[in-house]
Amino acid sequence: MYLCIGETFALNDEQGISYLEITSFSNEKLKNISNLKEKKHRESAGLFFLEGYREILRAHKSGKVRFQNLLFSPECFLGENETALIREIGAKAIKVPKKLFEKISYRDRPDGLIATAHFFPIDLDTFQKKFQTHRNKKPVLVIEGVEKPGNLGTILRTAEGAGFHTVLVADPRLDLFNPNVIRASTGALFSLDVFLGETENIYSILQKNEYRTLAVTPEAKKLYFDADLKGKIALVFGSEQYGLSPYARSHSDEYFSLPMYGEADSLNLAMSAGIVMYEVIRQGLQK
Amino acid sequence: MYLCIGETFALNDEQGISYLEITSFSNEKLKNISNLKEKKHRESAGLFFLEGYREILRAHKSGKVRFQNLLFSPECFLGENETALIREIGAKAIKVPKKLFEKISYRDRPDGLIATAHFFPIDLDTFQKKFQTHRNKKPVLVIEGVEKPGNLGTILRTAEGAGFHTVLVADPRLDLFNPNVIRASTGALFSLDVFLGETENIYSILQKNEYRTLAVTPEAKKLYFDADLKGKIALVFGSEQYGLSPYARSHSDEYFSLPMYGEADSLNLAMSAGIVMYEVIRQGLQK
Repeated sequence: MYLCIGETFALNDEQGISYLEITSFSNEKLKNISNLKEKKHRESAGLFFLEGYREILRAHKSGKVRFQNLLFSPECFLGENETALIREIGAKAIKVPKKLFEKISYRDRPDGLIATAHFFPIDLDTFQKKFQTHRNKKPVLVIEGVEKPGNLGTILRTAEGAGFHTVLVADPRLDLFNPNVIRASTGALFSLDVFLGETENIYSILQKNEYRTLAVTPEAKKLYFDADLKGKIALVFGSEQYGLSPYARSHSDEYFSLPMYGEADSLNLAMSAGIVMYEVIRQGLQK
Repeated sequence: MYLCIGETFALNDEQGISYLEITSFSNEKLKNISNLKEKKHRESAGLFFLEGYREILRAHKSGKVRFQNLLFSPECFLGENETALIREIGAKAIKVPKKLFEKISYRDRPDGLIATAHFFPIDLDTFQKKFQTHRNKKPVLVIEGVEKPGNLGTILRTAEGAGFHTVLVADPRLDLFNPNVIRASTGALFSLDVFLGETENIYSILQKNEYRTLAVTPEAKKLYFDADLKGKIALVFGSEQYGLSPYARSHSDEYFSLPMYGEADSLNLAMSAGIVMYEVIRQGLQK
């Protein structure tokens, strides 16, 4: 057992977790964890910040996330399984009082668990290897230039619900490890295969694997439900503000749109993606 | 021309707008406007707060919104038509400097227009009259117990895009005039017929008008695309956290669910509603 400024090390035998107890926000370790909410700190540390029992559980179950620290505050726990999860993950555990936890949390109602974890590979080389090994035949989603973390997170959550396994994010205007992507995805960022690259490279891999690229754009006359969405397809969506990239606009195999009524000039990006992904399900399942 | 503390009254002949100029946040008029972001102040004043060129334009075009004040800050304008809109609306105009405007705004990037307007009728009596006069045959959306303003706003925006005219909000856990409902709806709150009531009363009116109530719940075995969504139907969705109310759970004509894969246990409420509304379009339009 050792002691240093603002820290207490203790082994809690009862719960089987050994943890460091920190009670001051000026502690360097806490500052480093809290800083990971910002992109520049994530990039220099190669670590990201994830919060919430559900998200951490799913990151752990995915097998692809290597944890560094696990911050916990039992006063905030909402369930019964938090301690078991901390034990199972085996990362360096740090106990903090509720007030301190709330200061580090980015949620309105924190549930007492925050983790830091190492970046995992999201490059296209990794994607290509995985894709070829798996001889993927599942539909794939391509999201270009996405700007809003909440939108990307919702897209990932919906993609998982719709049975998609792979989401390729092309030239995004956000950081994939943004805590709001993780939150809105409810952890689907970990359970899905999510990769990052340039549209041109993504198209090249998809074409090599005999995928049809089907791009959604309001100018297309064909409606999405009149398109054949079976087989090896990649659905391609452009950014909230600018739509499809020039490359996708001229290199996709087919184009279609969603019907739009009233004074609405567009749907939310995540909504459009969800509607078309569920049409893929319908075409595959309907009797 | 008159002058009082912190206010200057001027007639800008060039633009044809007469306005009051206020430069101090401690001015009572500004405080009253800013307060309308909070429910208690909206309720005691019978007024709501709406921000943004697009939202104010759509509120004006709807014909159902009676404006009180129009706060503007030309330094924040993003377009060319703001002055014309202020002139056309003819509400009491108040000019404020950018810094003051940003203080009152609830947006990250304010576009220089904020209005206050009188509540418009959203009760079921008004709905019933309108419904019977119109001999409505269009599909209707019923949203029960909704908690998140952003969800309701997104639902309204999507409902408009999907060609729905009427959204009935049953026993919500939010205020319909919450600025975040208006923002996420991009103004669809004004262009659609949106009414508020209790599920039981809503069902009673729908049944009198020979509408079928089709409720979405994860326990139902039937999938939404296997249901007949043509004709006079009301799609019913429960709250984010609790799902359908006990009344809707036992008094609807049919029940169905959305298929769900992976570890996802649910979709976002707005997403589910959007997916099913677009299936209504597909069944009506597909060749």
